[in-house]
Amino acid sequence: MFTPRPIGTVKSPYAETREIPKGLGAQHEAQGVLEILPEFEVGLTDIEDFSHLHVLWAFDRSQGFDLLGTPPSDNRPHGVFATRSPRRPNPIGLTVVELLRRDGPRLHVRGVDMLDGTPILDIKPYLSSVPPEKLRRGWLAEAEARQK
Amino acid sequence: MFTPRPIGTVKSPYAETREIPKGLGAQHEAQGVLEILPEFEVGLTDIEDFSHLHVLWAFDRSQGFDLLGTPPSDNRPHGVFATRSPRRPNPIGLTVVELLRRDGPRLHVRGVDMLDGTPILDIKPYLSSVPPEKLRRGWLAEAEARQK
Repeated sequence: MFTPRPIGTVKSPYAETREIPKGLGAQHEAQGVLEILPEFEVGLTDIEDFSHLHVLWAFDRSQGFDLLGTPPSDNRPHGVFATRSPRRPNPIGLTVVELLRRDGPRLHVRGVDMLDGTPILDIKPYLSSVPPEKLRRGWLAEAEARQK
Repeated sequence: MFTPRPIGTVKSPYAETREIPKGLGAQHEAQGVLEILPEFEVGLTDIEDFSHLHVLWAFDRSQGFDLLGTPPSDNRPHGVFATRSPRRPNPIGLTVVELLRRDGPRLHVRGVDMLDGTPILDIKPYLSSVPPEKLRRGWLAEAEARQK
């Protein structure tokens, strides 16, 4: 296996976990900046032509993991791999962001749900979507239906 | 930072990189199995109700990285973070698969593009899609247009 290293950090409006919108209907419209380290800037070549990016990052303020947990969007426990809980065997986060503009090694994006200072592990172009009519959203859809 | 550990391995029809469909128009319809280790099986609770999953995995047969590279789908170089190249600073792969069925710790899926035996790092539910009309696919769309 490899040894993870940050390629940069997230500049986010969220200093603490409780500030991040959570639960059913939470919107992630916050703007932030992906600040890439100078030695990796060449790796951003041509990224400005993509509208959306996958950002992989480390839950660096999370310790340990739970195989079952009750997410903020439900009152029932679910398996960790069926949730986005930070308490995972490999504490890697995944966020889809909209790329607003690039300013050298700084990617201005919309949709951050990471804490300020979060280490970025990787960025990949978002290339295709699952057609909405083919998507089933499991317990989350059920939790939403119960709330109505 | 954390130390990555496998939560399981991919059973895939691809024994070698050259067997994996690549380049423009490549389809990833291959079926495979995500074999989760027994100690993590509880973490799969309720996952069977999701139609699609994000799989994070390690490029365990890739060494080193290139900040610029020419992908199989183009004849021009692009930054590594604008491609899905295996030669990345953190060699983490990301694949969206369709979950066909769960058999205990084994997830039968469609859409594998990993080599047989690839270590799995994480599984997350695929929850939402970018609306197609909002998606711009950068150099890939340009390469497709040039080929026509």
